Amino acid sequence: MPASEFDRLWRRLMALSEIGAIPGGGVDRQALTAGEASAWRRVIEWGREAGLHPATDEAANLFLVLPGRDRAAAPVLLGSHLDTQPTGGRFDGAAGVLAALDAVTDLAASGRVPARDCVVVAWMNEEGSRFAPGMMGSEAFCGVRDLAAIRAVRDADGVSTGDALERFLAGFPDLPRRPLGKPVAAYLELHIEQGPVLEAAGIPVGIVTGIQGKKTYAVRLSGAEGHAGTLAMAQRRDAVAAFARCAAALHHEMGSLDPDIKLTVGRVQVTPNAPSVVAGEVRFSIDLRHPDNAVLDAAGARIAPLCEAEAGPCAVAVTPLVDAPSNAFDPGLRDRIGRAAVELGIPAMPLLSAAGHDARHLAGRCPAAMIFVPCRTGISHAPAEWAEPAHLAAGAAILARVLEDLAFADALPLPPDLPPLPGDLR
Amino acid sequence: MPASEFDRLWRRLMALSEIGAIPGGGVDRQALTAGEASAWRRVIEWGREAGLHPATDEAANLFLVLPGRDRAAAPVLLGSHLDTQPTGGRFDGAAGVLAALDAVTDLAASGRVPARDCVVVAWMNEEGSRFAPGMMGSEAFCGVRDLAAIRAVRDADGVSTGDALERFLAGFPDLPRRPLGKPVAAYLELHIEQGPVLEAAGIPVGIVTGIQGKKTYAVRLSGAEGHAGTLAMAQRRDAVAAFARCAAALHHEMGSLDPDIKLTVGRVQVTPNAPSVVAGEVRFSIDLRHPDNAVLDAAGARIAPLCEAEAGPCAVAVTPLVDAPSNAFDPGLRDRIGRAAVELGIPAMPLLSAAGHDARHLAGRCPAAMIFVPCRTGISHAPAEWAEPAHLAAGAAILARVLEDLAFADALPLPPDLPPLPGDLR
Repeated sequence: MPASEFDRLWRRLMALSEIGAIPGGGVDRQALTAGEASAWRRVIEWGREAGLHPATDEAANLFLVLPGRDRAAAPVLLGSHLDTQPTGGRFDGAAGVLAALDAVTDLAASGRVPARDCVVVAWMNEEGSRFAPGMMGSEAFCGVRDLAAIRAVRDADGVSTGDALERFLAGFPDLPRRPLGKPVAAYLELHIEQGPVLEAAGIPVGIVTGIQGKKTYAVRLSGAEGHAGTLAMAQRRDAVAAFARCAAALHHEMGSLDPDIKLTVGRVQVTPNAPSVVAGEVRFSIDLRHPDNAVLDAAGARIAPLCEAEAGPCAVAVTPLVDAPSNAFDPGLRDRIGRAAVELGIPAMPLLSAAGHDARHLAGRCPAAMIFVPCRTGISHAPAEWAEPAHLAAGAAILARVLEDLAFADALPLPPDLPPLPGDLR
Repeated sequence: MPASEFDRLWRRLMALSEIGAIPGGGVDRQALTAGEASAWRRVIEWGREAGLHPATDEAANLFLVLPGRDRAAAPVLLGSHLDTQPTGGRFDGAAGVLAALDAVTDLAASGRVPARDCVVVAWMNEEGSRFAPGMMGSEAFCGVRDLAAIRAVRDADGVSTGDALERFLAGFPDLPRRPLGKPVAAYLELHIEQGPVLEAAGIPVGIVTGIQGKKTYAVRLSGAEGHAGTLAMAQRRDAVAAFARCAAALHHEMGSLDPDIKLTVGRVQVTPNAPSVVAGEVRFSIDLRHPDNAVLDAAGARIAPLCEAEAGPCAVAVTPLVDAPSNAFDPGLRDRIGRAAVELGIPAMPLLSAAGHDARHLAGRCPAAMIFVPCRTGISHAPAEWAEPAHLAAGAAILARVLEDLAFADALPLPPDLPPLPGDLR
């Protein structure tokens, strides 16, 4: 890829990061906000300049279409997301959308007509910070979650995703609406690693083998409020004391079960949360990840019994939320990424994704794969998030080369029978 | 006390509970709010009807003065507070102010001039829910805490106590200001028990022996934020995991140190408090109480070492806030309360106060004592708080009788040398 075109990608990334900019170089551009609408307008404008046709769907996924010879054939999709965490960075999501736009722009500029549509996509609400949990756009598109259930989710101000979708899409009345769940021939996504592996290895590109499985839970401990001075300890049903025992036991047991388990209790909400009142209720989140589905299932099965054993006089209710098994990406597409890296002389290595991505859901629908680029010290979801221009250029060049393969291939591979998770995912 | 006068006390209590009323029979009338100002106006009006002279001081304590023969003599003070918790009840504080007003009103109506001023008092911000910690008015009056330090405390909206004091007092421009820290001959306070002892014993009046000691702390655990999917457990500095270990260990060790220790971790604040982010910081409160100062000191000395031992890779900072040793009330006044109960044929029992009260601070300045009345199932700081009319009548009758003794006595006892905590405080 010539330097000038990489300059275009970098310039666009920096320009996009001005939309929703926060101090320290970060970005606050949460899903379906005015900021995301501004980002859409900018990206649509860049797409139109390249001759691409913008479209959307009921789930407010954004598409920029380069028409192929056979308009009825399943398209190649490539992209990521434009929303960020409230204190997010400049690269998570945006890098993948703009690298895809760059690749399709170059393809269009070459004057050749691809065999099938090549489509840049920006999925709605990957982050899940405003409306939780995230990945709503790809879930709706892939039929993983019902759109009605997605529309019912409310943000902290009580606004439903449904209302936010309608208000957002009303700002784009001219965009045609594509049906949800159209067949897809293949899906590619470039993303920053959000981990330290590539940087530590000194390798600019990761060929993502799969995504680590994840289960999440909401736990409620119900005790009884009481006066800190008058209620005897033996008579207390103290929800904070119960929480401390549960969380300490969960960390202790999960650590001994398997060293690769990742357990995070990230959110804790105490009621009434007053210094001199014994807490009547604690609600907390559990995020559990492991690349081996068998280990993940075994760990998940321990959550409720452990909480029940440690809750003492408090009642405990464990509600499973997300249950996303580990998935492997398409071996054929991973091979193509590896061959492109070799042809371009770019060092690349296989790598498991510890974080979830929209590609997880696409992988259930079509051959899918991801390209990772390093990010400094593994930091993401923070203003300090940073990717080196040269690394982004390397990843984008490989993405463009694989797109060439897919755009002009006579026939694309059928959706793979998802194989059992290979050993290299560990 | 004739039935009609008790009816007056009950009617006034119910009328006052309309000011700041919340669903379920509760009251939200926090310190220095418009609601408390309305309560002041009502109480001042009742006091003026009885011929009492309202006054205030720089700390917005309210006084209603029945002048005595010797205006230069130290007065008898009796009262409590008019502020409530945000979801408080009808009796906590208000019962003590209105019972005091009733007693002084009856004394004034008798036409006899007491030997010394008899003064109803409503202390500013006993509850400490808006500006923490509480008991600000009695602390300023007794010189326990500097008024400048009190004025610097801010509420959750950033309003300083100093600004709130000035705005509040500007609503009462005609009230004369008494100096802080005037000598006091004796202090009496009637209050609901806020515990289950009297109700369980079937006794309508408690002669409070003293107040259980209390220490409070603010603890900050500082770790590092991280991605729940990508950051290896071994590399985490997870503040929630550290909190769980600290809180579990505190409960375990304090329970084994002494069965009467009361340990409450009531407030927990997690940053950023997001399900998929390893928490970078947890701040939490510790409330520690025990009637024996030696045990309380020994328990308090364990707080910081325990937190440091359990914080793992997180930094820990323990800040002591309140250090209020147990105090015993004046034996002479307790005797007078007991004699009044016998004379009136009202069953009474000695009782330790597990909760703190303004009387704690007055006890360091003058002979002080408290009269408790039962509250249903020990509940307070909640709309369900309830005291039986007959129990209130009994407590108020004893208060009035002891006031008679103090109002006309030739000479009042000197401030006692506070004795070592007697055994009956346990």
